[in-house]
Amino acid sequence: MARTAGVVVIGDEILSGKFADENAAFLIRELRALGVDLRRVTVIPDELDDIADTVPRFSARFDHVFTSGGVGPTHDDVTIAGIARGFGTGVVRHPDLEAKVRSYWGAKLADANLRLADVPEGADLVYGADHVWPVVAYRNVYILPGVPALFRRKFHDIADRFRAVPVVVARVYVAADEGAIAPSLDAVVAAFADVKLGSYPRFDEREYKVLLTVEGRDAAHVAAALADLVVRLGAAVVRVDDPRAAGPAS
Amino acid sequence: MARTAGVVVIGDEILSGKFADENAAFLIRELRALGVDLRRVTVIPDELDDIADTVPRFSARFDHVFTSGGVGPTHDDVTIAGIARGFGTGVVRHPDLEAKVRSYWGAKLADANLRLADVPEGADLVYGADHVWPVVAYRNVYILPGVPALFRRKFHDIADRFRAVPVVVARVYVAADEGAIAPSLDAVVAAFADVKLGSYPRFDEREYKVLLTVEGRDAAHVAAALADLVVRLGAAVVRVDDPRAAGPAS
Repeated sequence: MARTAGVVVIGDEILSGKFADENAAFLIRELRALGVDLRRVTVIPDELDDIADTVPRFSARFDHVFTSGGVGPTHDDVTIAGIARGFGTGVVRHPDLEAKVRSYWGAKLADANLRLADVPEGADLVYGADHVWPVVAYRNVYILPGVPALFRRKFHDIADRFRAVPVVVARVYVAADEGAIAPSLDAVVAAFADVKLGSYPRFDEREYKVLLTVEGRDAAHVAAALADLVVRLGAAVVRVDDPRAAGPAS
Repeated sequence: MARTAGVVVIGDEILSGKFADENAAFLIRELRALGVDLRRVTVIPDELDDIADTVPRFSARFDHVFTSGGVGPTHDDVTIAGIARGFGTGVVRHPDLEAKVRSYWGAKLADANLRLADVPEGADLVYGADHVWPVVAYRNVYILPGVPALFRRKFHDIADRFRAVPVVVARVYVAADEGAIAPSLDAVVAAFADVKLGSYPRFDEREYKVLLTVEGRDAAHVAAALADLVVRLGAAVVRVDDPRAAGPAS
Protein backbone atom coordinates (compact mmCIF):
# COMPACT_ATOMS: atom_id res chain seq x y z
CA MET A 1 0.00 0.00 0.00
CA ALA A 2 1.27 3.42 -0.91
CA ARG A 3 1.41 6.07 1.79
CA THR A 4 -1.16 8.83 1.43
CA ALA A 5 -1.04 12.48 2.37
CA GLY A 6 -3.34 15.47 2.70
CA VAL A 7 -2.45 19.16 2.84
CA VAL A 8 -4.42 21.86 4.67
CA VAL A 9 -3.43 25.41 3.78
CA ILE A 10 -4.72 27.81 6.43
CA GLY A 11 -4.72 31.12 4.67
CA ASP A 12 -7.13 34.00 4.27
CA GLU A 13 -4.34 35.59 2.25
CA ILE A 14 -4.50 32.80 -0.35
CA LEU A 15 -8.31 32.70 -0.62
CA SER A 16 -8.45 36.48 -1.01
CA GLY A 17 -5.71 36.55 -3.63
CA LYS A 18 -3.26 38.66 -1.61
CA PHE A 19 -0.57 36.03 -2.08
CA ALA A 20 -0.44 33.19 -4.57
CA ASP A 21 -0.11 29.75 -3.01
CA GLU A 22 3.47 28.51 -2.99
CA ASN A 23 3.40 25.89 -0.24
CA ALA A 24 0.84 23.48 -1.66
CA ALA A 25 2.54 23.71 -5.07
CA PHE A 26 5.87 22.95 -3.39
CA LEU A 27 4.47 19.96 -1.47
CA ILE A 28 2.84 18.56 -4.61
CA ARG A 29 6.29 18.34 -6.22
CA GLU A 30 8.08 17.11 -3.08
CA LEU A 31 5.56 14.42 -2.16
CA ARG A 32 5.52 13.16 -5.72
CA ALA A 33 9.32 12.91 -5.74
CA LEU A 34 9.18 11.04 -2.42
CA GLY A 35 6.61 8.56 -3.77
CA VAL A 36 3.82 9.68 -1.42
CA ASP A 37 0.25 9.71 -2.82
CA LEU A 38 -1.12 13.19 -2.24
CA ARG A 39 -4.89 12.71 -2.04
CA ARG A 40 -6.28 16.12 -1.11
CA VAL A 41 -5.27 19.77 -0.85
CA THR A 42 -7.65 22.14 0.90
CA VAL A 43 -7.33 25.88 1.45
CA ILE A 44 -9.39 27.19 4.37
CA PRO A 45 -9.67 30.54 6.20
CA ASP A 46 -7.81 31.48 9.41
CA GLU A 47 -10.78 30.32 11.51
CA LEU A 48 -10.66 28.25 14.64
CA ASP A 49 -13.80 26.22 13.94
CA ASP A 50 -12.89 25.42 10.37
CA ILE A 51 -9.40 24.29 11.39
CA ALA A 52 -10.86 22.22 14.25
CA ASP A 53 -13.30 20.56 11.85
CA THR A 54 -10.94 20.00 8.94
CA VAL A 55 -7.62 18.82 10.39
CA PRO A 56 -8.89 15.80 12.38
CA ARG A 57 -10.80 14.59 9.30
CA PHE A 58 -7.57 14.70 7.32
CA SER A 59 -5.70 13.01 10.15
CA ALA A 60 -8.16 10.10 10.18
CA ARG A 61 -8.15 9.73 6.41
CA PHE A 62 -4.51 10.04 5.36
CA ASP A 63 -1.18 8.67 6.59
CA HIS A 64 0.48 12.08 6.75
CA VAL A 65 -1.08 15.53 7.05
CA PHE A 66 0.72 18.82 6.54
CA THR A 67 -0.68 22.17 7.56
CA SER A 68 0.61 25.50 6.29
CA GLY A 69 0.11 28.82 8.01
CA GLY A 70 -1.56 30.36 11.01
CA VAL A 71 1.46 29.83 13.25
CA GLY A 72 2.83 32.96 14.87
CA PRO A 73 2.34 35.62 17.50
CA THR A 74 -0.66 37.57 16.14
CA HIS A 75 -4.46 37.39 16.49
CA ASP A 76 -4.88 35.66 13.12
CA ASP A 77 -2.54 32.79 14.08
CA VAL A 78 -5.08 30.24 15.30
CA THR A 79 -3.77 26.98 13.87
CA ILE A 80 -2.43 25.58 17.16
CA ALA A 81 -5.64 26.41 19.00
CA GLY A 82 -7.76 25.05 16.15
CA ILE A 83 -5.90 21.74 16.00
CA ALA A 84 -6.02 21.38 19.77
CA ARG A 85 -9.77 22.01 19.78
CA GLY A 86 -10.31 19.61 16.92
CA PHE A 87 -8.61 16.78 18.78
CA GLY A 88 -10.28 17.68 22.08
CA THR A 89 -7.09 18.67 23.82
CA GLY A 90 -5.71 21.91 25.24
CA VAL A 91 -2.92 24.29 24.29
CA VAL A 92 0.21 24.17 26.46
CA ARG A 93 3.48 26.04 26.41
CA HIS A 94 6.21 23.56 25.56
CA PRO A 95 9.24 24.07 27.84
CA ASP A 96 11.84 23.15 25.19
CA LEU A 97 10.30 25.55 22.68
CA GLU A 98 9.94 28.27 25.28
CA ALA A 99 13.66 28.00 26.05
CA LYS A 100 14.45 28.31 22.32
CA VAL A 101 12.16 31.31 21.89
CA ARG A 102 13.65 33.09 24.91
CA SER A 103 17.18 32.36 23.73
CA TYR A 104 16.45 33.54 20.16
CA TRP A 105 14.84 36.87 21.10
CA GLY A 106 16.88 37.55 24.22
CA ALA A 107 16.28 41.03 25.62
CA LYS A 108 14.00 41.91 22.67
CA LEU A 109 11.45 39.24 23.59
CA ALA A 110 7.83 40.42 23.40
CA ASP A 111 5.20 38.49 25.33
CA ALA A 112 3.43 37.62 22.08
CA ASN A 113 6.54 35.81 20.79
CA LEU A 114 6.04 33.18 23.47
CA ARG A 115 2.97 32.04 21.53
CA LEU A 116 5.50 30.38 19.21
CA ALA A 117 6.16 27.93 22.08
CA ASP A 118 2.49 26.92 22.32
CA VAL A 119 1.53 23.44 21.09
CA PRO A 120 -1.50 21.15 21.33
CA GLU A 121 -1.07 19.14 24.53
CA GLY A 122 0.58 15.84 23.62
CA ALA A 123 2.38 17.19 20.56
CA ASP A 124 5.79 15.88 19.52
CA LEU A 125 8.80 17.93 18.52
CA VAL A 126 10.28 16.37 15.39
CA TYR A 127 13.94 17.16 14.79
CA GLY A 128 15.54 16.77 11.38
CA ALA A 129 19.06 17.37 10.16
CA ASP A 130 18.82 20.96 11.43
CA HIS A 131 18.86 20.38 15.16
CA VAL A 132 17.90 23.93 16.07
CA TRP A 133 14.16 24.34 15.39
CA PRO A 134 11.97 21.24 15.42
CA VAL A 135 8.69 20.75 13.56
CA VAL A 136 5.67 20.52 15.86
CA ALA A 137 3.62 17.40 15.11
CA TYR A 138 0.37 16.26 16.68
CA ARG A 139 -0.14 12.55 15.87
CA ASN A 140 0.31 12.40 12.07
CA VAL A 141 -0.20 16.16 11.56
CA TYR A 142 2.92 18.22 10.81
CA ILE A 143 2.33 21.88 11.59
CA LEU A 144 4.35 24.13 9.28
CA PRO A 145 4.57 27.92 9.00
CA GLY A 146 2.98 29.82 6.12
CA VAL A 147 5.96 31.93 5.09
CA PRO A 148 7.20 30.00 2.03
CA ALA A 149 10.93 30.18 2.77
CA LEU A 150 10.37 28.79 6.28
CA PHE A 151 7.84 26.24 5.08
CA ARG A 152 10.31 24.81 2.57
CA ARG A 153 13.20 24.78 5.00
CA LYS A 154 11.21 22.98 7.68
CA PHE A 155 9.77 20.42 5.29
CA HIS A 156 13.14 19.63 3.73
CA ASP A 157 14.50 19.15 7.21
CA ILE A 158 12.15 16.23 7.92
CA ALA A 159 11.39 15.02 4.37
CA ASP A 160 13.36 11.79 4.58
CA ARG A 161 10.93 10.26 7.04
CA PHE A 162 8.21 10.28 4.33
CA ARG A 163 10.20 8.52 1.57
CA ALA A 164 8.17 5.75 -0.13
CA VAL A 165 8.10 3.74 -3.38
CA PRO A 166 8.40 6.10 -6.36
CA VAL A 167 5.85 6.30 -9.17
CA VAL A 168 6.85 5.48 -12.75
CA VAL A 169 5.14 7.59 -15.46
CA ALA A 170 5.06 7.17 -19.23
CA ARG A 171 3.51 9.76 -21.53
CA VAL A 172 1.87 9.18 -24.90
CA TYR A 173 1.09 12.10 -27.20
CA VAL A 174 -1.85 11.39 -29.51
CA ALA A 175 -3.16 13.14 -32.62
CA ALA A 176 -6.81 12.12 -32.24
CA ASP A 177 -9.93 13.32 -30.44
CA GLU A 178 -10.52 12.00 -26.94
CA GLY A 179 -13.88 10.66 -28.04
CA ALA A 180 -12.30 8.57 -30.78
CA ILE A 181 -9.73 6.92 -28.50
CA ALA A 182 -12.01 6.45 -25.46
CA PRO A 183 -12.78 2.77 -26.23
CA SER A 184 -9.04 1.96 -26.43
CA LEU A 185 -8.46 3.66 -23.08
CA ASP A 186 -11.32 1.72 -21.52
CA ALA A 187 -9.75 -1.55 -22.68
CA VAL A 188 -6.36 -0.70 -21.15
CA VAL A 189 -7.97 0.44 -17.88
CA ALA A 190 -9.86 -2.85 -17.69
CA ALA A 191 -6.73 -4.94 -18.33
CA PHE A 192 -4.29 -3.28 -15.88
CA ALA A 193 -5.81 -2.77 -12.44
CA ASP A 194 -2.79 -1.21 -10.72
CA VAL A 195 -1.92 1.17 -13.56
CA LYS A 196 -3.55 4.58 -13.72
CA LEU A 197 -4.35 6.08 -17.11
CA GLY A 198 -4.90 9.82 -17.44
CA SER A 199 -6.27 11.56 -20.53
CA TYR A 200 -5.72 15.31 -20.99
CA PRO A 201 -6.97 17.11 -24.10
CA ARG A 202 -4.87 20.10 -25.15
CA PHE A 203 -6.17 22.72 -27.52
CA ASP A 204 -3.06 24.84 -27.83
CA GLU A 205 -0.61 22.23 -29.13
CA ARG A 206 0.11 21.78 -32.81
CA GLU A 207 1.50 18.26 -32.98
CA TYR A 208 -0.92 16.44 -30.69
CA LYS A 209 -4.45 16.73 -29.31
CA VAL A 210 -4.36 14.53 -26.23
CA LEU A 211 -1.67 13.74 -23.65
CA LEU A 212 -2.08 10.32 -22.06
CA THR A 213 -0.22 9.38 -18.87
CA VAL A 214 0.37 5.78 -17.81
CA GLU A 215 1.59 5.41 -14.25
CA GLY A 216 2.07 3.06 -11.36
CA ARG A 217 4.60 1.78 -8.84
CA ASP A 218 5.27 -1.52 -10.64
CA ALA A 219 7.49 -0.60 -13.60
CA ALA A 220 6.80 -3.88 -15.42
CA HIS A 221 3.05 -3.35 -15.27
CA VAL A 222 3.42 0.23 -16.49
CA ALA A 223 5.56 -1.00 -19.39
CA ALA A 224 3.01 -3.68 -20.30
CA ALA A 225 0.11 -1.22 -20.16
CA LEU A 226 2.08 1.27 -22.23
CA ALA A 227 2.85 -1.35 -24.88
CA ASP A 228 -0.80 -2.42 -25.04
CA LEU A 229 -1.96 1.19 -25.31
CA VAL A 230 0.47 2.04 -28.11
CA VAL A 231 -0.62 -0.98 -30.14
CA ARG A 232 -4.29 -0.09 -29.71
CA LEU A 233 -3.81 3.54 -30.72
CA GLY A 234 -1.68 2.66 -33.76
CA ALA A 235 -0.96 5.53 -36.15
CA ALA A 236 -2.57 8.13 -33.85
CA VAL A 237 0.51 8.01 -31.58
CA VAL A 238 2.80 10.98 -32.24
CA ARG A 239 5.42 10.37 -29.55
CA VAL A 240 6.06 8.21 -26.47
CA ASP A 241 8.08 9.27 -23.42
CA ASP A 242 8.99 5.98 -21.81
CA PRO A 243 10.39 6.23 -18.29
CA ARG A 244 12.59 3.17 -18.86
CA ALA A 245 14.61 5.25 -21.28
CA ALA A 246 15.68 7.84 -18.70
CA GLY A 247 15.22 9.04 -15.16
CA PRO A 248 15.87 7.64 -11.71
CA ALA A 249 12.46 5.96 -11.43
CA SER A 250 13.00 3.61 -14.39
CA MET B 1 -24.32 39.37 4.04
CA ALA B 2 -21.60 38.77 1.50
CA ARG B 3 -22.03 35.92 -0.94
CA THR B 4 -19.74 32.96 -0.34
CA ALA B 5 -18.17 30.49 -2.74
CA GLY B 6 -16.29 27.20 -2.71
CA VAL B 7 -14.17 25.64 -5.44
CA VAL B 8 -13.68 21.91 -6.01
CA VAL B 9 -10.86 21.05 -8.41
CA ILE B 10 -11.24 17.45 -9.60
CA GLY B 11 -7.80 16.57 -10.81
CA ASP B 12 -5.42 13.66 -10.39
CA GLU B 13 -3.17 15.65 -12.73
CA ILE B 14 -2.91 18.50 -10.21
CA LEU B 15 -2.35 16.31 -7.12
CA SER B 16 0.35 14.33 -8.94
CA GLY B 17 2.11 17.44 -10.22
CA LYS B 18 1.62 16.72 -13.93
CA PHE B 19 0.03 20.12 -14.40
CA ALA B 20 0.13 23.14 -12.12
CA ASP B 21 -3.27 24.41 -11.04
CA GLU B 22 -4.45 27.34 -13.12
CA ASN B 23 -8.20 27.26 -12.57
CA ALA B 24 -8.35 27.76 -8.81
CA ALA B 25 -5.76 30.55 -9.10
CA PHE B 26 -7.90 32.17 -11.80
CA LEU B 27 -11.11 31.89 -9.76
CA ILE B 28 -9.40 33.36 -6.68
CA ARG B 29 -8.67 36.52 -8.69
CA GLU B 30 -12.06 36.62 -10.44
CA LEU B 31 -14.18 36.05 -7.35
CA ARG B 32 -12.22 38.66 -5.44
CA ALA B 33 -12.78 41.18 -8.22
CA LEU B 34 -16.50 40.32 -8.22
CA GLY B 35 -16.74 40.82 -4.45
CA VAL B 36 -17.53 37.16 -3.69
CA ASP B 37 -16.06 35.67 -0.48
CA LEU B 38 -14.17 32.56 -1.51
CA ARG B 39 -14.22 30.33 1.57
CA ARG B 40 -12.63 27.07 0.47
CA VAL B 41 -10.65 25.53 -2.36
CA THR B 42 -10.24 21.76 -2.41
CA VAL B 43 -8.35 19.60 -4.87
CA ILE B 44 -9.54 15.98 -4.98
CA PRO B 45 -8.82 12.95 -7.20
CA ASP B 46 -10.89 11.86 -10.23
CA GLU B 47 -12.90 9.50 -8.02
CA LEU B 48 -16.64 9.01 -8.03
CA ASP B 49 -17.03 8.54 -4.28
CA ASP B 50 -14.89 11.51 -3.35
CA ILE B 51 -16.76 13.79 -5.75
CA ALA B 52 -20.11 12.45 -4.47
CA ASP B 53 -19.04 13.14 -0.89
CA THR B 54 -17.40 16.52 -1.42
CA VAL B 55 -19.62 18.48 -3.81
CA PRO B 56 -22.93 18.27 -1.87
CA ARG B 57 -21.11 19.41 1.30
CA PHE B 58 -19.86 22.47 -0.58
CA SER B 59 -23.32 23.05 -2.05
CA ALA B 60 -24.90 23.08 1.41
CA ARG B 61 -22.24 25.35 2.88
CA PHE B 62 -21.62 28.05 0.25
CA ASP B 63 -23.80 30.23 -1.97
CA HIS B 64 -21.95 29.30 -5.15
CA VAL B 65 -19.85 26.23 -5.94
CA PHE B 66 -17.58 25.81 -8.94
CA THR B 67 -16.11 22.52 -10.02
CA SER B 68 -13.18 22.18 -12.39
CA GLY B 69 -12.35 19.09 -14.42
CA GLY B 70 -13.51 15.55 -14.95
CA VAL B 71 -15.89 16.52 -17.74
CA GLY B 72 -15.31 14.76 -21.05
CA PRO B 73 -15.60 11.54 -23.00
CA THR B 74 -13.01 9.30 -21.29
CA HIS B 75 -12.99 6.82 -18.39
CA ASP B 76 -11.44 9.36 -16.00
CA ASP B 77 -14.23 11.90 -16.56
CA VAL B 78 -16.49 11.05 -13.64
CA THR B 79 -17.59 14.47 -12.38
CA ILE B 80 -21.14 14.32 -13.75
CA ALA B 81 -21.70 10.82 -12.35
CA GLY B 82 -20.12 11.80 -9.02
CA ILE B 83 -22.29 14.89 -8.61
CA ALA B 84 -25.42 12.96 -9.58
CA ARG B 85 -24.61 10.25 -7.05
CA GLY B 86 -23.85 12.81 -4.36
CA PHE B 87 -27.26 14.43 -4.77
CA GLY B 88 -29.05 11.10 -5.06
CA THR B 89 -30.13 11.59 -8.64
CA GLY B 90 -29.31 9.90 -11.94
CA VAL B 91 -27.39 10.85 -15.07
CA VAL B 92 -29.47 11.70 -18.12
CA ARG B 93 -28.60 12.75 -21.65
CA HIS B 94 -29.83 16.31 -22.13
CA PRO B 95 -31.58 16.68 -25.50
CA ASP B 96 -30.39 20.27 -26.11
CA LEU B 97 -26.79 19.33 -25.39
CA GLU B 98 -27.04 16.18 -27.46
CA ALA B 99 -28.20 18.26 -30.44
CA LYS B 100 -25.22 20.60 -29.95
CA VAL B 101 -22.75 17.73 -29.68
CA ARG B 102 -24.12 16.04 -32.81
CA SER B 103 -24.05 19.31 -34.72
CA TYR B 104 -20.48 20.12 -33.62
CA TRP B 105 -18.93 16.77 -34.49
CA GLY B 106 -21.13 15.96 -37.50
CA ALA B 107 -19.95 12.88 -39.38
CA LYS B 108 -16.88 12.57 -37.11
CA LEU B 109 -19.00 11.95 -34.01
CA ALA B 110 -17.71 9.12 -31.80
CA ASP B 111 -20.13 7.48 -29.37
CA ALA B 112 -18.01 8.63 -26.46
CA ASN B 113 -18.47 12.30 -27.43
CA LEU B 114 -22.14 11.99 -26.52
CA ARG B 115 -21.03 11.74 -22.88
CA LEU B 116 -20.56 15.52 -23.15
CA ALA B 117 -24.37 15.74 -23.29
CA ASP B 118 -24.80 13.86 -20.00
CA VAL B 119 -25.94 15.86 -16.96
CA PRO B 120 -27.24 15.10 -13.47
CA GLU B 121 -31.01 14.74 -13.76
CA GLY B 122 -32.58 18.11 -12.94
CA ALA B 123 -29.55 20.15 -14.02
CA ASP B 124 -29.96 23.58 -15.60
CA LEU B 125 -28.23 24.88 -18.69
CA VAL B 126 -26.97 28.39 -17.93
CA TYR B 127 -26.41 30.57 -20.97
CA GLY B 128 -24.21 33.66 -20.84
CA ALA B 129 -23.26 36.19 -23.48
CA ASP B 130 -21.96 33.35 -25.66
CA HIS B 131 -25.20 31.67 -26.63
CA VAL B 132 -23.57 28.62 -28.13
CA TRP B 133 -22.37 26.39 -25.26
CA PRO B 134 -24.10 26.73 -21.89
CA VAL B 135 -22.62 25.94 -18.48
CA VAL B 136 -24.21 22.93 -16.80
CA ALA B 137 -25.37 23.77 -13.27
CA TYR B 138 -26.94 21.53 -10.68
CA ARG B 139 -28.61 23.68 -8.01
CA ASN B 140 -25.82 26.12 -6.99
CA VAL B 141 -23.01 23.99 -8.47
CA TYR B 142 -21.49 25.22 -11.73
CA ILE B 143 -19.71 22.38 -13.54
CA LEU B 144 -16.75 23.67 -15.54
CA PRO B 145 -14.16 21.85 -17.68
CA GLY B 146 -10.57 21.35 -16.52
CA VAL B 147 -8.78 22.63 -19.61
CA PRO B 148 -7.79 26.14 -18.49
CA ALA B 149 -8.63 27.99 -21.71
CA LEU B 150 -12.15 26.50 -21.70
CA PHE B 151 -12.57 26.97 -17.97
CA ARG B 152 -11.79 30.69 -18.24
CA ARG B 153 -13.99 31.20 -21.28
CA LYS B 154 -16.98 29.49 -19.65
CA PHE B 155 -16.59 31.31 -16.35
CA HIS B 156 -16.25 34.71 -17.99
CA ASP B 157 -19.39 33.95 -19.95
CA ILE B 158 -21.51 33.71 -16.79
CA ALA B 159 -19.45 35.81 -14.35
CA ASP B 160 -21.86 38.75 -14.19
CA ARG B 161 -24.45 36.72 -12.31
CA PHE B 162 -22.06 36.48 -9.32
CA ARG B 163 -21.27 40.19 -8.98
CA ALA B 164 -21.47 41.40 -5.34
CA VAL B 165 -20.22 44.23 -3.11
CA PRO B 166 -16.47 44.72 -3.62
CA VAL B 167 -13.90 44.52 -0.83
CA VAL B 168 -11.77 47.56 0.05
CA VAL B 169 -8.18 46.78 1.14
CA ALA B 170 -5.54 49.00 2.68
CA ARG B 171 -1.95 47.84 3.24
CA VAL B 172 0.44 48.95 5.95
CA TYR B 173 4.15 48.09 5.76
CA VAL B 174 5.78 47.90 9.17
CA ALA B 175 9.42 47.79 10.29
CA ALA B 176 8.89 45.86 13.52
CA ASP B 177 8.60 42.24 14.67
CA GLU B 178 5.12 40.71 14.66
CA GLY B 179 5.50 39.94 18.35
CA ALA B 180 6.11 43.58 19.18
CA ILE B 181 3.04 44.87 17.33
CA ALA B 182 0.65 42.04 18.33
CA PRO B 183 -1.00 44.04 21.17
CA SER B 184 -1.75 46.95 18.78
CA LEU B 185 -3.32 44.55 16.29
CA ASP B 186 -5.43 42.97 19.03
CA ALA B 187 -6.77 46.42 19.98
CA VAL B 188 -7.78 47.24 16.40
CA VAL B 189 -9.41 43.83 15.92
CA ALA B 190 -11.43 44.36 19.09
CA ALA B 191 -12.58 47.84 18.02
CA PHE B 192 -13.69 47.11 14.43
CA ALA B 193 -15.85 44.01 14.17
CA ASP B 194 -16.51 44.11 10.42
CA VAL B 195 -12.94 44.88 9.41
CA LYS B 196 -10.48 42.04 8.86
CA LEU B 197 -6.84 42.54 9.82
CA GLY B 198 -4.16 40.28 8.32
CA SER B 199 -0.55 40.14 9.46
CA TYR B 200 2.10 38.66 7.16
CA PRO B 201 5.77 38.56 8.20
CA ARG B 202 8.23 38.77 5.32
CA PHE B 203 11.85 37.80 5.69
CA ASP B 204 13.09 38.73 2.25
CA GLU B 205 12.18 42.43 2.21
CA ARG B 206 14.65 45.12 3.15
CA GLU B 207 12.43 48.05 4.05
CA TYR B 208 9.76 46.31 6.13
CA LYS B 209 9.27 43.18 8.22
CA VAL B 210 5.50 42.78 8.30
CA LEU B 211 2.75 43.52 5.79
CA LEU B 212 -0.59 44.29 7.42
CA THR B 213 -3.84 44.26 5.43
CA VAL B 214 -6.99 46.05 6.57
CA GLU B 215 -10.10 45.10 4.64
CA GLY B 216 -13.87 45.14 4.58
CA ARG B 217 -16.87 46.07 2.46
CA ASP B 218 -17.64 49.29 4.34
CA ALA B 219 -15.03 51.79 3.11
CA ALA B 220 -15.61 54.18 6.04
CA HIS B 221 -14.99 51.43 8.60
CA VAL B 222 -11.84 50.34 6.78
CA ALA B 223 -10.61 53.95 6.77
CA ALA B 224 -11.32 54.33 10.49
CA ALA B 225 -9.56 51.06 11.36
CA LEU B 226 -6.61 52.05 9.19
CA ALA B 227 -6.31 55.43 10.90
CA ASP B 228 -6.47 53.81 14.34
CA LEU B 229 -3.86 51.22 13.38
CA VAL B 230 -1.44 53.79 11.97
CA VAL B 231 -1.66 55.89 15.14
CA ARG B 232 -1.04 52.85 17.34
CA LEU B 233 1.98 51.68 15.35
CA GLY B 234 3.56 55.14 15.21
CA ALA B 235 7.10 55.30 13.90
CA ALA B 236 7.15 51.61 12.95
CA VAL B 237 4.99 52.39 9.89
CA VAL B 238 7.13 52.53 6.73
CA ARG B 239 4.39 53.06 4.14
CA VAL B 240 0.61 52.98 3.79
CA ASP B 241 -1.29 52.01 0.65
CA ASP B 242 -4.70 53.53 1.18
CA PRO B 243 -7.40 52.40 -1.25
CA ARG B 244 -9.10 55.82 -1.05
CA ALA B 245 -6.09 57.23 -2.89
CA ALA B 246 -6.51 55.09 -6.01
CA GLY B 247 -8.40 52.19 -7.55
CA PRO B 248 -11.98 51.50 -8.53
CA ALA B 249 -12.96 50.15 -5.10
CA SER B 250 -12.28 53.42 -3.26
